[in-house]
Amino acid sequence: MNNLRVDTDRLMGRIAALGRVGALEGGGVCRLALGEADRAGRDLVAGWMREAGLSVSIDEIGNVTGVRPGREEGPPVMIGSHIDTVATGGLYDGNLGVLAGLEVVQTLNDAGIRTAGPVAVGFFTNEEGARFAPDMMGSGVHQGALSLADCLATRDAEGTSVADALERIGYRGDVPVGSVRAHAFLELHVEQGPVLEEEGVAIGAVTGVQGISWTEYRLTGTSNHAGTTPMRLRHDAGYVAAAIAVEARRLANEMGGTQVATVGVNELVPNLINVIARDARLTVDLRNTDDDALRAAEARMTRFVTETAAAEGVTVETRTLARFAPVAFDDAMINLVAETAQALGHTVKRMPSGAGHDAQMFAPNCPTAMIFVPSQGGISHNVQEYTAPEQIRAGADVLLQSLLAVAGQAPDRGSS
Amino acid sequence: MNNLRVDTDRLMGRIAALGRVGALEGGGVCRLALGEADRAGRDLVAGWMREAGLSVSIDEIGNVTGVRPGREEGPPVMIGSHIDTVATGGLYDGNLGVLAGLEVVQTLNDAGIRTAGPVAVGFFTNEEGARFAPDMMGSGVHQGALSLADCLATRDAEGTSVADALERIGYRGDVPVGSVRAHAFLELHVEQGPVLEEEGVAIGAVTGVQGISWTEYRLTGTSNHAGTTPMRLRHDAGYVAAAIAVEARRLANEMGGTQVATVGVNELVPNLINVIARDARLTVDLRNTDDDALRAAEARMTRFVTETAAAEGVTVETRTLARFAPVAFDDAMINLVAETAQALGHTVKRMPSGAGHDAQMFAPNCPTAMIFVPSQGGISHNVQEYTAPEQIRAGADVLLQSLLAVAGQAPDRGSS
Repeated sequence: MNNLRVDTDRLMGRIAALGRVGALEGGGVCRLALGEADRAGRDLVAGWMREAGLSVSIDEIGNVTGVRPGREEGPPVMIGSHIDTVATGGLYDGNLGVLAGLEVVQTLNDAGIRTAGPVAVGFFTNEEGARFAPDMMGSGVHQGALSLADCLATRDAEGTSVADALERIGYRGDVPVGSVRAHAFLELHVEQGPVLEEEGVAIGAVTGVQGISWTEYRLTGTSNHAGTTPMRLRHDAGYVAAAIAVEARRLANEMGGTQVATVGVNELVPNLINVIARDARLTVDLRNTDDDALRAAEARMTRFVTETAAAEGVTVETRTLARFAPVAFDDAMINLVAETAQALGHTVKRMPSGAGHDAQMFAPNCPTAMIFVPSQGGISHNVQEYTAPEQIRAGADVLLQSLLAVAGQAPDRGSS
Repeated sequence: MNNLRVDTDRLMGRIAALGRVGALEGGGVCRLALGEADRAGRDLVAGWMREAGLSVSIDEIGNVTGVRPGREEGPPVMIGSHIDTVATGGLYDGNLGVLAGLEVVQTLNDAGIRTAGPVAVGFFTNEEGARFAPDMMGSGVHQGALSLADCLATRDAEGTSVADALERIGYRGDVPVGSVRAHAFLELHVEQGPVLEEEGVAIGAVTGVQGISWTEYRLTGTSNHAGTTPMRLRHDAGYVAAAIAVEARRLANEMGGTQVATVGVNELVPNLINVIARDARLTVDLRNTDDDALRAAEARMTRFVTETAAAEGVTVETRTLARFAPVAFDDAMINLVAETAQALGHTVKRMPSGAGHDAQMFAPNCPTAMIFVPSQGGISHNVQEYTAPEQIRAGADVLLQSLLAVAGQAPDRGSS
């Protein structure tokens, strides 16, 4: 392996500078997609792209791509992520992947390296979905998974459409969506979970993105006196809700592997100490990297809910709130990331992503990889989100070397 | 057994008439303690007492007692209950016991029967506790379980004291509390639960009142991403809350007997589908007629909460919201009610009361009995509360014959 390494100070300086755009008092940022702060952040990053010599284009959904030519023509190896944030976001989620891509380009520039194939750095519109639904909008449209027209017509809570918001901030581009195709796709991202930190591992070689199944249950029983109603005559919606939450945990423990299960919402009516709950509303969030396993988890949950509610004399209304199939990344790309990390002297763990990312939109269409670096305390979507500079350096160097392996490396000077 | 029976039409007429005082549109009544409707209800019932020849007195906490002399001096056998209601109350809870007592007196009057000992009918201030805490205030003060001064100083949500409210409605009496002592106490009441209806039984011979233990748990874990946080690294306050609710049910099922357990309150923070709950607040309502068993239930619950929270890495704050020891009624009185009911041709079930009643304040000081009649659908504290006239007749006849057995029966005419 060559001795090429990123300039961590330059990268950290840009993370800090972008973090001042839309900064919140007391730390963190708010750059909701296509708002004024997002415009300012886009202007800043697009300016850096141009300074780095990239030819920048903006497509119809506002995705911004900067291309660095290679020795040969053809679709570029793309490094990308997003710079929009949730309302109380951190400095790393998304931003790291974009700014590390820019740092990779500048490292190549400084070293005078021309790759065989072209390289691109991109940031994609509205990955967070915090203002406009769905999330991963720009990358989804870019890769043909979402309809451009539908997404442009999507409105936020105030009624503003994506099309109008893009116009307003000057980012409704005229380049047809997807005219910059990717030969391969790489994304460096903070883990947003505690695994790497917990296990003391520097680099996650991401194997794919978990499938997600969100279900809401509305349970209706009978409100009654907690003192005078014998156990056998109860129709307690609150009990059924609790039993479902306990079963969700049991299911995850028994299935093991990547299966996780969360009951994050649980509301009772009338929610009084001495009254048996008439109504309960709860949600079950199931995730697995294996779609068959996820389907098995869903079936087990459905069976449990049906049987438990029937036994208690409680009725159930079931609503699917979201269902995404798992995404598997390319084996050769996963191996490349893992081997590159090891060659650089870093510990590495192959692991799935529990959260959605732009990379998953590219995975069906081109070889795709993600590189995770640790999140302190597993905290993300939070102003306290933090990854240390030396951890970021490790991730950015793996990104650099992986890119060189995919794009084909050759010294610019002295090459024939 | 003699052929003396109550006049059901007269009794039902009075229940209906009292139900028109503070009537709600669409059914039910609102006669919160010591308000204007309570004053009107008190005036109506006290007037009926005087018409029935009782000598009416009002004590310092506003309890109203009407005494009918017997052939001998001494403390009366007292029939009592309350005429205050919750904000959306029914026509039977409390009112039935008072008006059936009055009906018993009028039946004795009509038949010209003079009992050996005196008989009294009473209604006690603020049994419901819906406006002033605690509940069972008038009977509690009457029997020395509560301090008169403290209760008079108690204020409602608007800051009005019991003393002022009594003055305002003209029911701050000058008779010292407890100057009318009871030789024995009888209370006819609607069950407020579903057991009698469910089992097709006419009369409940109440064995006592369950002890009550109310505990609030505040759980604090760590909020985290539902997708990226492995099960083994979670500190999920919502899961611990659910496990407690399921354990409460398991405990009640395994202990059996009169043990009931209810988790009526369960609140999560932040209560979002894809975020592990940081905080949970839940309440556990445990009741048992046996104080040792109730203590065992409390100990089991405490142990489970402590262990489960520790295993999950969730902290617990525990607060006792209420703790009342069980009350056992006098065996001879329970037998009297059961045998009287059977002699009158009614099915009877010995059963505890899950709710609190004025009778429990008398139980430590004199032989006390309660008679339950069925509540349709087990519904109470609700405008739909209902007990059919024939069910009320059965209960009132059991009350009449039980009273005669305790007070000593003799024909007024022709006695020497």
